[in-house]
Amino acid sequence: MIEETPKIPQATSKRLPLYYRFLQNFANANKERISSSELSEAMKIDAATIRRDFSHFGALGRKGYGYDVRYLVEFFRKALDEGEETDVALVGVGNLGSAFLKYNFHKNHNTRIVLAFDPKGTAEGKMISGIPVYHPDVLKEKIAEYGIDLVILTVPSKVAQEVTNDLAQVGVKGILNFTPVRLAAPDSVRVHTIDLSVELQTLIYFTKNDEKASHM
Amino acid sequence: MIEETPKIPQATSKRLPLYYRFLQNFANANKERISSSELSEAMKIDAATIRRDFSHFGALGRKGYGYDVRYLVEFFRKALDEGEETDVALVGVGNLGSAFLKYNFHKNHNTRIVLAFDPKGTAEGKMISGIPVYHPDVLKEKIAEYGIDLVILTVPSKVAQEVTNDLAQVGVKGILNFTPVRLAAPDSVRVHTIDLSVELQTLIYFTKNDEKASHM
Repeated sequence: MIEETPKIPQATSKRLPLYYRFLQNFANANKERISSSELSEAMKIDAATIRRDFSHFGALGRKGYGYDVRYLVEFFRKALDEGEETDVALVGVGNLGSAFLKYNFHKNHNTRIVLAFDPKGTAEGKMISGIPVYHPDVLKEKIAEYGIDLVILTVPSKVAQEVTNDLAQVGVKGILNFTPVRLAAPDSVRVHTIDLSVELQTLIYFTKNDEKASHM
Repeated sequence: MIEETPKIPQATSKRLPLYYRFLQNFANANKERISSSELSEAMKIDAATIRRDFSHFGALGRKGYGYDVRYLVEFFRKALDEGEETDVALVGVGNLGSAFLKYNFHKNHNTRIVLAFDPKGTAEGKMISGIPVYHPDVLKEKIAEYGIDLVILTVPSKVAQEVTNDLAQVGVKGILNFTPVRLAAPDSVRVHTIDLSVELQTLIYFTKNDEKASHM
């Protein structure tokens, strides 16, 4: 994937899904060409950053012409491997987990929750919001059976590390962690944590220190 | 606040709530001193980063002694203004919003949702999970009445910008945006976006490119 560009800076990589979404929107609106400043206005990202990012992909803006939208969409589609559908497991069907099951990422992307785990599930899979919810006793077995690489983790804090150990053991490669626990995981597992309390605290911190922070 | 240290790098600022939480845990366990390497192990953050961060606060590690836990907790408490309780409004009580109402950040921090808005609410406030849910018609009036600075936004995409305009108008300072919309807002409003689909896409991207990404 993206063999032409082996070293994309991490900050650039993180913007890939965003670029993809916005360019798709422009493509859907039958827009053929777009300038970095138009994209900048739509995405609220600095135009210079966009131009620098795109240069990493060997993308081909021309002065007074802009970027070819269809080329870019195709490029990002390949980069993000949107062509394939990615199956995801949800572990923990409490308040937040239930919300994810109902939402199920169906609107925007080729990712979907195909199974879930919760103590209220069963060995055979109890259907909730159209998804089989299994008992944690069969977690390793079912993760392997479904060939799951990616997990959304919405379990209570006290079991988060234990579940992570099990997931690592059975070959899961990525965990989107919504618990406040800093999970220890082997190098084979990438953990990305979204801690809602911390996000809120951070926002509060910034709103109270904005004069200081804004020039940094 | 933090008058002694007017220029904290943004990356450091973002770790403040995390430092606070972990140091609180150590304080609760009656630990008096902690080394950067112990903290590093607990937090999964590089010890050199911790030492550099702490130097920005004028914090006072001594070789072979470590940092004074109570001093640091008190320092971060002040920095984060945890002494005050922060009231938050939730706008949009769908799947995700309902999960937030039930969770209501009560476990960790002095932040709490005190009112919410949704078309299923009323002008007088319909109680859901113990919180009054008002109709969007009275949004500006109630935000002002409650003196709300911070909003969690979980509305459908198509109304996100309109609601943001209203919130900006009535003096809201921070929005934690869970919609996939890149919101335009005046400088007086800090918007922090958590786009769950993008987070997932990004994680997928990284798990598929980890050999390339890991050395960056």
